[in-house]
Amino acid sequence: MDLYFSPLACSLASRICLYEVGEASAATRFVRVDTRAKRLADGGDFFAINPLGQVPALRTDDGEVLTENTAVLQYLCERFPEARLAPEGTLARARLRECLGFIGTELHKAVFVPLLDARAPDAVKAYAREKLALRMGVLEKQLAGREFLLDAFSIADAYLVTVLNWSAATGTSLAEWPAVQAYHTRLHQRPSIARAFAEEMALYRAAQQATR
Amino acid sequence: MDLYFSPLACSLASRICLYEVGEASAATRFVRVDTRAKRLADGGDFFAINPLGQVPALRTDDGEVLTENTAVLQYLCERFPEARLAPEGTLARARLRECLGFIGTELHKAVFVPLLDARAPDAVKAYAREKLALRMGVLEKQLAGREFLLDAFSIADAYLVTVLNWSAATGTSLAEWPAVQAYHTRLHQRPSIARAFAEEMALYRAAQQATR
Repeated sequence: MDLYFSPLACSLASRICLYEVGEASAATRFVRVDTRAKRLADGGDFFAINPLGQVPALRTDDGEVLTENTAVLQYLCERFPEARLAPEGTLARARLRECLGFIGTELHKAVFVPLLDARAPDAVKAYAREKLALRMGVLEKQLAGREFLLDAFSIADAYLVTVLNWSAATGTSLAEWPAVQAYHTRLHQRPSIARAFAEEMALYRAAQQATR
Repeated sequence: MDLYFSPLACSLASRICLYEVGEASAATRFVRVDTRAKRLADGGDFFAINPLGQVPALRTDDGEVLTENTAVLQYLCERFPEARLAPEGTLARARLRECLGFIGTELHKAVFVPLLDARAPDAVKAYAREKLALRMGVLEKQLAGREFLLDAFSIADAYLVTVLNWSAATGTSLAEWPAVQAYHTRLHQRPSIARAFAEEMALYRAAQQATR
């Protein structure tokens, strides 16, 4: 398998899940994408791999290219069932997808994409930021008194931690939502997350240095 | 089951799927929500049902309230497997979720939510509209020569038709993407879609008249 990624982008969630899987996924190649230039390190055109130009994209062992973060994450659950990255049962799976939908549409796309976009006008960032309080308030209630979004660690936690990582870069203090802040800090102690984050942060910083 | 809906909102996709199911889902109650006032017809507070204030919300036969369109739609697939609203097999399911992710994040949230929002400033609408061409171009290629998004009708088609319905209200002509336009027109001939759309359009128009 090949995971097309960009440092600290939402593809980080898939890296976290692959580290959760451990040995069984150790042959995965991580292929870096310059998502601004839409180029691979060898100069290849990333649009030829994902016509939307977005990470993650996952090339399966059968050569199929799968896109969309929530689809890639759920594929990893099915590809590596022994890692228990998703709960079992119709209702529990529905709750997992509810979390994925919320993170993907309400936090990632509605709030953080505009806030992270250097080319977004101030009015666009303000519109996105207005949406933050309601959504974080819902999340605060959901996480209060819980270790994970669901009963055990899942792909939804990998995705949520990845999105919450963007709070720092967008001037969004999590202090207003203490359960969310504690969750974020706590989850960063988890070995898969600590390792994935440290590795991608190093890549991100090196790239920042190189463009100065 | 109770489906909380607002006329022509993305909850229409669930109504379409329930009509596809037919008799087995005929006991479903459709509970209308005023998503601006966040009130039910009886004055009840919709935030008490979904703290995000969004439709669809589905109350299952066990009394669980499930939110997030992609979670509700996938729940309907599992609740009514005989309706074959989703394909089988790991890769086919992954492709279904890829479609759901694309429609939910790239079309619905990134483009159409700001375009449909009467309170969104012009800069916000312009930022959303800029995203349209790349996304519709990807969709055009995917639909060219195909009857459905996947090999057969699925929840992804119900969702896509629902989102494409918003093109008229947002001044977005589909003529530039002929395969998309033909798909939209063709799918509206499907009995479940024709019925669901006609019923909700009538409700929508009646509400528009009432507020004049």
